[in-house]
Amino acid sequence: MKTGVIFGKFFPLHTGHIHFINMASSLVDKLYIFVGVDSDRDQILFNDSKLRAFPTPQDRLRWVAKTFQKQDTIEAHILDESGIPFYPNGWAGWSDRVKEKFKEFDINPDIVFSSELDDIENYQKYFGLPTKIIDATRSFVHISATDIRQHPFRNWDYIPNEVKPFFVRTVAILGGESSGKSILVNKLAHVFNTTSAWEYGRDYVYQELGGTEEALQYSDYPKIALEHHKFIEYAVRHANRIAFLDTDFLTTQAFCIQYEGRKNPVLDTLINEFQFDKVILLDNNTPWVDDGMRSLGTPQKRRDFQNLLIDLLDEYNIEYTVIDDKSYEDRYLAAIDIVQKLLND
Amino acid sequence: MKTGVIFGKFFPLHTGHIHFINMASSLVDKLYIFVGVDSDRDQILFNDSKLRAFPTPQDRLRWVAKTFQKQDTIEAHILDESGIPFYPNGWAGWSDRVKEKFKEFDINPDIVFSSELDDIENYQKYFGLPTKIIDATRSFVHISATDIRQHPFRNWDYIPNEVKPFFVRTVAILGGESSGKSILVNKLAHVFNTTSAWEYGRDYVYQELGGTEEALQYSDYPKIALEHHKFIEYAVRHANRIAFLDTDFLTTQAFCIQYEGRKNPVLDTLINEFQFDKVILLDNNTPWVDDGMRSLGTPQKRRDFQNLLIDLLDEYNIEYTVIDDKSYEDRYLAAIDIVQKLLND
Amino acid sequence: MKTGVIFGKFFPLHTGHIHFINMASSLVDKLYIFVGVDSDRDQILFNDSKLRAFPTPQDRLRWVAKTFQKQDTIEAHILDESGIPFYPNGWAGWSDRVKEKFKEFDINPDIVFSSELDDIENYQKYFGLPTKIIDATRSFVHISATDIRQHPFRNWDYIPNEVKPFFVRTVAILGGESSGKSILVNKLAHVFNTTSAWEYGRDYVYQELGGTEEALQYSDYPKIALEHHKFIEYAVRHANRIAFLDTDFLTTQAFCIQYEGRKNPVLDTLINEFQFDKVILLDNNTPWVDDGMRSLGTPQKRRDFQNLLIDLLDEYNIEYTVIDDKSYEDRYLAAIDIVQKLLND
Amino acid sequence: MKTGVIFGKFFPLHTGHIHFINMASSLVDKLYIFVGVDSDRDQILFNDSKLRAFPTPQDRLRWVAKTFQKQDTIEAHILDESGIPFYPNGWAGWSDRVKEKFKEFDINPDIVFSSELDDIENYQKYFGLPTKIIDATRSFVHISATDIRQHPFRNWDYIPNEVKPFFVRTVAILGGESSGKSILVNKLAHVFNTTSAWEYGRDYVYQELGGTEEALQYSDYPKIALEHHKFIEYAVRHANRIAFLDTDFLTTQAFCIQYEGRKNPVLDTLINEFQFDKVILLDNNTPWVDDGMRSLGTPQKRRDFQNLLIDLLDEYNIEYTVIDDKSYEDRYLAAIDIVQKLLND
Repeated sequence: MKTGVIFGKFFPLHTGHIHFINMASSLVDKLYIFVGVDSDRDQILFNDSKLRAFPTPQDRLRWVAKTFQKQDTIEAHILDESGIPFYPNGWAGWSDRVKEKFKEFDINPDIVFSSELDDIENYQKYFGLPTKIIDATRSFVHISATDIRQHPFRNWDYIPNEVKPFFVRTVAILGGESSGKSILVNKLAHVFNTTSAWEYGRDYVYQELGGTEEALQYSDYPKIALEHHKFIEYAVRHANRIAFLDTDFLTTQAFCIQYEGRKNPVLDTLINEFQFDKVILLDNNTPWVDDGMRSLGTPQKRRDFQNLLIDLLDEYNIEYTVIDDKSYEDRYLAAIDIVQKLLND
Repeated sequence: MKTGVIFGKFFPLHTGHIHFINMASSLVDKLYIFVGVDSDRDQILFNDSKLRAFPTPQDRLRWVAKTFQKQDTIEAHILDESGIPFYPNGWAGWSDRVKEKFKEFDINPDIVFSSELDDIENYQKYFGLPTKIIDATRSFVHISATDIRQHPFRNWDYIPNEVKPFFVRTVAILGGESSGKSILVNKLAHVFNTTSAWEYGRDYVYQELGGTEEALQYSDYPKIALEHHKFIEYAVRHANRIAFLDTDFLTTQAFCIQYEGRKNPVLDTLINEFQFDKVILLDNNTPWVDDGMRSLGTPQKRRDFQNLLIDLLDEYNIEYTVIDDKSYEDRYLAAIDIVQKLLND
Repeated sequence: MKTGVIFGKFFPLHTGHIHFINMASSLVDKLYIFVGVDSDRDQILFNDSKLRAFPTPQDRLRWVAKTFQKQDTIEAHILDESGIPFYPNGWAGWSDRVKEKFKEFDINPDIVFSSELDDIENYQKYFGLPTKIIDATRSFVHISATDIRQHPFRNWDYIPNEVKPFFVRTVAILGGESSGKSILVNKLAHVFNTTSAWEYGRDYVYQELGGTEEALQYSDYPKIALEHHKFIEYAVRHANRIAFLDTDFLTTQAFCIQYEGRKNPVLDTLINEFQFDKVILLDNNTPWVDDGMRSLGTPQKRRDFQNLLIDLLDEYNIEYTVIDDKSYEDRYLAAIDIVQKLLND
Repeated sequence: MKTGVIFGKFFPLHTGHIHFINMASSLVDKLYIFVGVDSDRDQILFNDSKLRAFPTPQDRLRWVAKTFQKQDTIEAHILDESGIPFYPNGWAGWSDRVKEKFKEFDINPDIVFSSELDDIENYQKYFGLPTKIIDATRSFVHISATDIRQHPFRNWDYIPNEVKPFFVRTVAILGGESSGKSILVNKLAHVFNTTSAWEYGRDYVYQELGGTEEALQYSDYPKIALEHHKFIEYAVRHANRIAFLDTDFLTTQAFCIQYEGRKNPVLDTLINEFQFDKVILLDNNTPWVDDGMRSLGTPQKRRDFQNLLIDLLDEYNIEYTVIDDKSYEDRYLAAIDIVQKLLND
């Protein structure tokens, strides 16, 4: 049985890495992948990047583990490289760390796979292992992790499906009834050719209440929110760079306050726990359209509900952008403008 | 177009009602069903019953609305009958309430359907409407709402699928690793021929972490709990009288505290919001079996984790029953005993 | 490690068996279950039963394997007992067969579990193994496989969830547009408190054609049928004794002929491969109701379509019962009558 | 209420059209979209394109209808333009056809939306309608249907999600057990960052047979194929340009012949009905790896099964490419080469 080892930062994993790992795994019976993490170095890489959040060691490990999950000859682990001095002085300390891991997981490698010609000598010196150089010139997949950190959206096709959700930007569109938010979410999702999470409240009334809003009660609000969370997860998982969300948990809280006279603690926690990259609040200055659902149709009621949304946004410290154009055309163009800025890297 | 009306308490809806409504709807083009609610009377009915929770007006409305959702000739509403004196004096006041509803929903009935011969005269007197008596002797379906309120589990087959979840009893089985809870949940679910919600944490590691627990981090715990909630909902929806739950949100909180050193607020809210009918805590006095997952394998660690569970149960004011038999056979028989008491009506 | 063995016919598996296996598996580290099959004996058992189909050895094995799938200490195999003489002479020959299986699967048992006191001596004599008698008096679950073979519907609660689909009777209701079949299927499913598979064609138009029947074409018909098959499987899997099917593959074939002028071979095969226990054809003598879908609304067109259905039923050799009452009430009662006969065991 | 009309070929619909329709729908209360089809013209467009199949009028209608399904102010229909002479002589004949459609669907338009300045005069002349020009210079989305017909894969991001499945290329990878096809499918799906449909047979054994292949029987084969078809549909729906399929219906037929001694007619029909863009047959000259499933492990058995696959491919007239490299590395590179040719437009 032949055993190989690969070391990498996978910050983030990209399809170039995948080709590399595919090649390596074709040549051995068992392949170990070590995801190297170094808190200081990784923080610098992050600060220099356009990433929306810091990818933890666990994030990077799961990207690799999920992608190769069905190939049971491949096994991945985290390798903590923190505190080791930089090249060329670090090889001794680094090889000690690696050997500890080999011992911990009972690994007896026969070969190291690398794309760096310079590593050959050191793997021989510190591990007594031969190195096989793969795709050193990146002939098939032309991409680097640096490229992706700098321009994730321009290099979207090189970000593996299991990694994409980490990079997706979420845009929640809020507004009272008849603010046109559902139609706007549809327009944006279609023109940006991506997913959206529609307002689950309407589905809930259909699926769980037999279609009659008269049957809605306090205990339904957390259930609506939990299911809405699933829709959001689905939208993010299948998104093309950006996912549009029709309402958020805060709007559900607003409806709960409006109809039941009190907040719901589940909604409270979800609002705090799951935040979105951009929140757009639509002003309620478009004409009222009756959709047959429970009605907030008088001008005063619409204003009150809008104020409730604004109060909640402030209370939960959520930043938002208002779109208050009066024509649907201008609202659509204003939203496109906001999204393009978000995607511009 | 011929319009019919039905009045009932539907406390709860049963298959006898369904036969009645099926017959009535065969005879008209549009059928209105009024779910009569009276807070005082309903509280008395509840107190005299074996119901686990009070069925709200909205609960009862949705049972009717969901069952007949695909028959768009049927429409249901709540009728508040509170404060009207009892028969025979109440007919005048009651008919006023009904007529208001007729006005509100623009209903012009041609006929009333009833199973009570005595009603014929009053419907004529107060509404000028003829009454059609259906199935007065309950020839096809022999059941009454009183029977179900007294013995829901004995009359399970007469409880409509949309109503059953309201009556299902949930039994959560808690315990540390290697306490045998997963196997026990399986045994109970199979012998009682019903559903169970297995511990989602294991699935999560497989589905979201590529199978490696090394990739688990703080932000995963609420996601595990939200998905576990979905599994519980599914188990309850398809249960035969009782649903067994392998762990609960409190156990997930315990793991979060154990591995991340702090509570998660989403778990906190879920523990408080979603409670179960019976919580069984398995003592950790059975032999340790290594399942390849993250390990709490030393005797001291197992005791500590068990104590953490007990502390959390106390802290969240959750009542529980301990099973501390040493043999798996006795644990199984002890659990059967607990469940049979729960089902004994 | 302690190893136990169980022998049984499982014709069919019932909750009494499950309790027996639960008890046995509590007492050993590994439990082997042998599903004994004997073609002659099993044919006699079948002929004396009310079963709708012969349960093959593979059917019976999978019932056991699926029920205990998550308990990895349990493993089941088929044991062919055909041709061995009956008791008491058969023990020698039978024990030889068993020992071959022990060898094949490398089983070294320590104990046999049985509910028959009489077996103790023979297991000792032929295998040198002690026997543990479990639940000989059926104290907890009072059921036998004979009871179930004679009265499956009366003993429904004792049939494990994994076995129930085998016993479910399928009732397909056919008819042209506006024959009232969808409403009738709803009424029957609700009053018999069971599942139904609605006509997938309507969903398909909504989900795959954007809601416009104008976009329907020849290649859609097999896709409709394949998805309808999934709905039928789901209905059968969750049925309470009986499942109602709104249309069948033959009706889809009829629509294909009607609108595309030719049969589709996928539909052809599905009609032949998947047959139902009862086919009810509704006469088209009720009033026409326009549902906004593609129209066969003239009396001549409705007659033609009805004749097409009848021709296809004859062509595919499918037996069917006609309901031609003119009132919806009588049609509903006629259908109840047919179903009750089917369930009457 | 203001009504607008849009005319287009949508050959195919692209995100430029979507922006156009979004803008138009912002300006009216109801928008009608006519999908113009002309059998001769469309055939020429197709012949000049890189499309894998001819998009029927119904295909093009459903693309529009599905994309805008949730915007109920938008309604789409087919407009048959066949046989009308080309510009400029066609306007009279064309406007007659359009007016018939207006009459058929009771449309009274107030405005036409167009991107062609030249149309203004003719819409005024033949319909008396003003024209609003939108995005004539394609300022926001730079794409044309011609671009997509010539280079669908290069312009993938401009193909709407509802249209993409039409363009996806399917690559089925066939081979006997231990031919390495599952691993190869994984490698290709990951490096091309797209979906795959894994071999459902393995899942079926787990889900439906309790994990034991011993329970497999003749009637399971069509069920495996029907479910595999669903997986293929899912893979195609979410594919990035190409979808990889682990086995096909023909392989299931081969297993059915191998283990049951006869063909299954459902498989027969599925093989004929659903064909794939590229079929790759892996030679069975790699080392045998026992995966614990039913075994064809002797060299003779492997050769026989391979020959059975080849015979069936010939019998069903399916073209295929053989990959017979001996190393996994060369097989992987050979497959990449085949796929790149397929994607090269």
